[in-house]
Amino acid sequence: MSLTALSNICVVLVETTHPGNIGGVARAMKNMGLSDLRLVSPKRFPHDDAVWRAASAGEMLNTATVTETLAEAVADCGLVIGSSARDRRIPWPLLPPRQCAAQAVAEASTHKVALVFGREDRGLTNDELRACNLHVCIPSNPEYSSLNLAMAVQVISYECRVAALDNNEDISAMAEWDQPVATAEAMRQYFVHLEETLVEIGFLQPRAPKQLMTRLKRLYHRTRPDEMEMNILRGILTTTQQRLRKLAAEAAGTPDQAEND
Amino acid sequence: MSLTALSNICVVLVETTHPGNIGGVARAMKNMGLSDLRLVSPKRFPHDDAVWRAASAGEMLNTATVTETLAEAVADCGLVIGSSARDRRIPWPLLPPRQCAAQAVAEASTHKVALVFGREDRGLTNDELRACNLHVCIPSNPEYSSLNLAMAVQVISYECRVAALDNNEDISAMAEWDQPVATAEAMRQYFVHLEETLVEIGFLQPRAPKQLMTRLKRLYHRTRPDEMEMNILRGILTTTQQRLRKLAAEAAGTPDQAEND
Repeated sequence: MSLTALSNICVVLVETTHPGNIGGVARAMKNMGLSDLRLVSPKRFPHDDAVWRAASAGEMLNTATVTETLAEAVADCGLVIGSSARDRRIPWPLLPPRQCAAQAVAEASTHKVALVFGREDRGLTNDELRACNLHVCIPSNPEYSSLNLAMAVQVISYECRVAALDNNEDISAMAEWDQPVATAEAMRQYFVHLEETLVEIGFLQPRAPKQLMTRLKRLYHRTRPDEMEMNILRGILTTTQQRLRKLAAEAAGTPDQAEND
Repeated sequence: MSLTALSNICVVLVETTHPGNIGGVARAMKNMGLSDLRLVSPKRFPHDDAVWRAASAGEMLNTATVTETLAEAVADCGLVIGSSARDRRIPWPLLPPRQCAAQAVAEASTHKVALVFGREDRGLTNDELRACNLHVCIPSNPEYSSLNLAMAVQVISYECRVAALDNNEDISAMAEWDQPVATAEAMRQYFVHLEETLVEIGFLQPRAPKQLMTRLKRLYHRTRPDEMEMNILRGILTTTQQRLRKLAAEAAGTPDQAEND
């Protein structure tokens, strides 16, 4: 039994409108043994409705962290899972709750895992979903598929608890890896650097559609780079830029300056 | 897939105090594809709070049946499952939600199945529990084990839906991808191109150990690029080379030749 894994799983709520839902989430989390609640720009918080719905989980509201951006909220997490409806234009790795929970619990033994839930009325934005390693979708009635926010957290948290109780060995493909996985913050910085470099070599037109970066984010999020791999990827970008700048300076007739670029 | 079984599963709420919870239950049921809601002596019903929490499941409140006793509510059911905390004096057949749902769905193909939930503050009485064929208990944090009523219905209903869907659908994360996966040959060519480019930018020393390429191969093999992603990756390499060669030619004073490289 690895219930301790649950302490490494956080729930992130993005721009929640109704404070009652935050309370409901807090209660659902505590019922299932989760304790790390993170709020990204909640509309109304703190609020009496949250306290009321939290019932005996009120202290979770006091210890919840509040940040302005999703990037800040998940910066220390090695696996970021976003809650999603199924119909996205570009497919992303998508798991049902049970398999998602198994992976979350398995990975939580080595790093922080974030479960990210979006706004009540329209979920996570495409950009937010593209900041996730994988997506989870709760199977639901096609005629009425939108679960209440706290209900969705309840279902996923429940699956995490069952997975943690399940006492199965680490089934993830990267169970015995030699390097820690890159954090969400490292991934974010990589994409900034990648985009900058692609513009610099002329592969990406800054004013062109974002489809290209989306596909690249999906690819690299899916592969879950470890820290050493991330260093290599960053190193390739840096070296490319240095080489280009040096050559450009030489072409312009100012080689010395380029050396110190 | 036997989702039709769900139409033979009813949810029975016994003496619910808060009408908001009835609405929450209606929504959870409809989200999961259940439709038969039965209320035993609700304290306040109908009520605006129920309508509010039901959201787009409001019609469930109109079609709900109301009876005075549990016996009336479950009279037509061949299997009655009662929601229970674990610590009952007399042991009863007790299943976790997953196994309970599997049995409910299996039996629902031949007869009505009732899922019975008790009062918010003290659940079902011993008499009521003894009117059940078996009990279900949601695993929870021993330090705070009491789930909100609607949350409990959500979890059990979710398990019923998953059980009904559970005819070996493809559950792999990339089941509904939009592009065919890159072939092994395409991967091989990519690594040749990648290595060549890394040498050209000066990141890879041809005589240095192969560890770097090994790590990059592991990374890209792991991510299983599709054909479009592979085109993008190849395009980045090609563009990088073209740009470098053009700049190098300019630096050497032979721009025209570089254009045709």
